Amino acid sequence: MTVSQIDEEVAKLLKLKAQIGGDEGKHQFTLKTAKGTRDYNPKQMAIRERVFNTIIRCFKRHGAETIDTPVFELKETLTGKYGEDSKLIYDLKDQGGELLSLRYDLTVPFARYLAMNKITNIKRYHIAKVYRRDNPAMTRGRYREFYQCVNDRRILDGMFAVCGVPDDKFRTICSTVDKLDKMSWEDVKSEMVNEKGLSEEAADQIGQYVSMQGGMDLAERLLQDAKMSQSKQACAGLTDMKQLFSYLQLFQVTDKVVFDLSLARGLDYYTGVIYEAILTQNCPVNVSATQNGVDEKAEEGVSVGSVAGGGRYDGLVGMFDPKGRKVPCVGVSIGIERVFSIMEQKAEASARKVRTTETQVMVASAQKNLLNERLRLTAELWNAGIKTEVMYKKNPKLLSQLQHCEDSGIPLVAILGEQELKDGVVKLRTVHSREEVSHTHNSLFTSVWSPSPLVTIPGTLGGC
Amino acid sequence: MTVSQIDEEVAKLLKLKAQIGGDEGKHQFTLKTAKGTRDYNPKQMAIRERVFNTIIRCFKRHGAETIDTPVFELKETLTGKYGEDSKLIYDLKDQGGELLSLRYDLTVPFARYLAMNKITNIKRYHIAKVYRRDNPAMTRGRYREFYQCVNDRRILDGMFAVCGVPDDKFRTICSTVDKLDKMSWEDVKSEMVNEKGLSEEAADQIGQYVSMQGGMDLAERLLQDAKMSQSKQACAGLTDMKQLFSYLQLFQVTDKVVFDLSLARGLDYYTGVIYEAILTQNCPVNVSATQNGVDEKAEEGVSVGSVAGGGRYDGLVGMFDPKGRKVPCVGVSIGIERVFSIMEQKAEASARKVRTTETQVMVASAQKNLLNERLRLTAELWNAGIKTEVMYKKNPKLLSQLQHCEDSGIPLVAILGEQELKDGVVKLRTVHSREEVSHTHNSLFTSVWSPSPLVTIPGTLGGC
Repeated sequence: MTVSQIDEEVAKLLKLKAQIGGDEGKHQFTLKTAKGTRDYNPKQMAIRERVFNTIIRCFKRHGAETIDTPVFELKETLTGKYGEDSKLIYDLKDQGGELLSLRYDLTVPFARYLAMNKITNIKRYHIAKVYRRDNPAMTRGRYREFYQCVNDRRILDGMFAVCGVPDDKFRTICSTVDKLDKMSWEDVKSEMVNEKGLSEEAADQIGQYVSMQGGMDLAERLLQDAKMSQSKQACAGLTDMKQLFSYLQLFQVTDKVVFDLSLARGLDYYTGVIYEAILTQNCPVNVSATQNGVDEKAEEGVSVGSVAGGGRYDGLVGMFDPKGRKVPCVGVSIGIERVFSIMEQKAEASARKVRTTETQVMVASAQKNLLNERLRLTAELWNAGIKTEVMYKKNPKLLSQLQHCEDSGIPLVAILGEQELKDGVVKLRTVHSREEVSHTHNSLFTSVWSPSPLVTIPGTLGGC
Repeated sequence: MTVSQIDEEVAKLLKLKAQIGGDEGKHQFTLKTAKGTRDYNPKQMAIRERVFNTIIRCFKRHGAETIDTPVFELKETLTGKYGEDSKLIYDLKDQGGELLSLRYDLTVPFARYLAMNKITNIKRYHIAKVYRRDNPAMTRGRYREFYQCVNDRRILDGMFAVCGVPDDKFRTICSTVDKLDKMSWEDVKSEMVNEKGLSEEAADQIGQYVSMQGGMDLAERLLQDAKMSQSKQACAGLTDMKQLFSYLQLFQVTDKVVFDLSLARGLDYYTGVIYEAILTQNCPVNVSATQNGVDEKAEEGVSVGSVAGGGRYDGLVGMFDPKGRKVPCVGVSIGIERVFSIMEQKAEASARKVRTTETQVMVASAQKNLLNERLRLTAELWNAGIKTEVMYKKNPKLLSQLQHCEDSGIPLVAILGEQELKDGVVKLRTVHSREEVSHTHNSLFTSVWSPSPLVTIPGTLGGC
C-alpha cells in the first residue's frame, strides 16, 4: 500500500466510526469556535494588553472615567437605534422571562445608562466586546500613518436639501454616499439614480460637493456658497466646523484632520459632527529600486479603511428618558481588532520575541532530589513579591531548566546545588550573559529587586 | 388640592399618556438592565480595577499566561459537561447558521481550546464574565478571613462505595452531600433516604465520614481505616492528599487549609482533588461591651460561602479530542463578583474617597476670556504625558474650577491669569494645602513630574 492509500483507508474508517458513534459518541463534536469569533493565545494576549494599555493611558491622560454594562440588554433597548443594521443583532433564545439581545455597540447601552442614572455630565471610556452577525473581512497590511476625516450630519442634510433630494430620501441617499470609500462616484451616482430614484440633476449637484476636501478654508468658502448658504442646517454645521478647526489649531493637529464632504457614517443616531480615523497602507507598487544589493519595492499610501469612528448623538439619551430630556453626547469608537491585527503583524515581522509572562527568576537545581529546596525558595521569592517560576518535575535536568528560560525570556536563574545549600548561598545566573554570582539569601533578594542590568526584562513589543 | 391629590392626578395623567403612546410612543421602554445583570459606575469600576490588579499580580507572580475565548460557543461544545446545571445555560436564538450558547464557565471553553490547539502544557489565567440563568442572592457582609476546604472526588467515590451506595447513585448522592454547607445533616440524610432511596444504614455510615475534618493526620488515619482502605480509589485520593499537605507544609500554609470530607462541588467534570475558598463573616452576636461610651457588639466568625473553587478535571479535554487523548488539568475559579462586593462595602464604610480618574493637574483660569490659553497649556501637558483636565465652559469661575478639583481628588491646579501670561509664568496650586508657587513653563512640567509631595495622588482604596 502507498502512503496515500493508507491515508484514504484511515479516513474511510474514521468516517465509518463517526457514523456509528465510535468512542461512546463523544467525538462527533465540531472542534471550532463559533463563526466570526476567535480565541486569543498568550502571545496575542500580550500584544492585546499592550494595545489596550496604550489606549487606556490616553483616556486616563484626558481625565476619563470608565464604566461597564452587561453583555446583553433587553431587546427593546436596542430596537429602533440602528436602522438597516438591526438585522445584524444577535438575539438570545426565548427561555422564559425577558427577551434579550447581545449588545451591538457600546453607545446605545451607554445612552440607556445615562438615562437610567440621570447623568448629564460624564467623560467615560468603555472597553468591551460588541456582537454583530456579519462577516468581517479582516484586511491586513502594513500601515504607515493615519488621518481623520470629519463631516457634520447637518452639513450633509443641508447639502441634500439644497441639491433637491426629497426629505424622505435623506437617509437612504446618505447610505449611498457612505459607500464612496469603496465605490467610484459613477457607481454611487448610478445607485442614487437607478436604485433610489433620485433625479440625475440632483445626483450631479451632490457629486460636486462630495468631492470637496479641506479645512477651515473650505468651511469658510461653503458658508459663502450661493446654494449651501441657503440651508440653515448646513450653516449651523459649517459654523461648528469652523470652531472645531480653531480648536484643532490650538492643539496643533490640523495636519491630521480633513474636512471631507463625502463622509456619511452608517448609523442613524448621529446628529452633528461625524468623523473617522483612516489608516494609510503601505502597498508595493511596480517601481523597484536597488539598494545595498537588495531589491526594494517603492511603496505608496493607500487607504485601507477606518480604525475608529464616531460623532455627536444628541437625541439618543432622550429616547430612553421618560420625559424625553435630551443629553448631548459625542464620542468615538475604536476598532481594536483592526489595531490589534496590525500590531500582531508588526510583532511577527520583527525579530523581537513577545514575552507572554513577566517571570523574573527561575528557581533551578543542579542536582537531583532538591524538589523541596526548590519549592521552599520559590515560596520565599513569591512572598517577597518576586515573579518566580519553578519546574514541576521532581528531577529536571539543569539544561532543560535553562532552556525553558531561553524559550520564555526569563532573565535570571537561581541555582541550588548540594554545595550551595551547605554554604548557605544561591547561585544567580544571568541568562543572556551566562554570568554567575553567588549570593547569600538576603543579597539574592536585593539583586533580583535592584534596578541593575540584571533585571532588565526585554520589552515585549517595540514601538507601540 | 393637597400635594398627594396632585401626585395622584399626575400619576393618572402619565398613565393615560403612556397608554395612548404619548411622545411618539418612544417612552414605553422599560429602563432597566436585564434580570440578574448590573451596570458598574466609575466608582465601582475603580474598585473592580483594584481587585483585578491584585489578582492579576498574583497570577503573574506565579508565571501564568493569559488567553481569551469568545463569549459564546457552539451549543454542542457545552452539551453534557454540567450535569443538572445545564438548564441554566443561556442559548442564543436560532437566526440561521450555528446553534450557539453563552459560556457557562471558563473551564469548558479552556478544554476546547487545549484540544483544538493540541496544547498539553500551559499555566493560564483567564478573566472574563460567564453567564448563568439563575438568581444569585448576593449575601453581603463584613468578612474577616478565609480558609480553604479540600477533598478529592476519588475519596468521595471510594467512601460511597464502602458505605454501600450503589454505583448508579454516586453522582446524585454526591449532589446531596454538596448541600451540607446550607443544610443540617438531618435534612441531608432525609433527602438521601426519602428522596434518593438510599438505605438508612448507608446514609449513617456516610454521616460518620462527612463530619470529619483535618489535615495530613486525617489522610493518614483514613488510609488505615478498615473500611476506607478497602477502596483503591479512596487510597489513591488519600495518598495524593498526603502529598498535597507535604507541599502545603513547604509553602507554610497548612493553617489555611482543611481536608474536609463533606466537600463535594456540584460540577460533573472533576476527577481528583477539589477545593473551595470560604470566607468567614463577622456577625454581631448578643454580647455587648461598652467602650468609650459606645455600645459595641462582639463579633463571631460565621461562614458565608465560597469565593473561589475548583479542582482537577483530567477527562474534560479528552472529550474534545478526536482520539480521546487525555490532558490532565487542575484549576481554580474566583467568584470575583463576591470579592468585589466585599471590597465595595469596605470602601463605603471607609471615610476615604475613591478616585475614579487619575488626573494630576487641572488647568484653570482666574480671569475671563482665557479659553484658548487654557486649551493650549492643556495640550502641552497632554503631549508631555501628564494627566490633565480643563473645564469646557468658556468662562468658568475660579471657585468652581477649584471645587471640581476637591470633588474629584485632582491634587494640582495650574492657574493662568493676565498677569501670569504677561510674566510668562504659571501659578501651581496644591489643592489640599492651598499653597501656590509661580513657575516658568519648564519648571512647571518638572514640578508636576517630580516625585515631590506635590504629586502624591491619594490612593483610591485603603488596604486592598
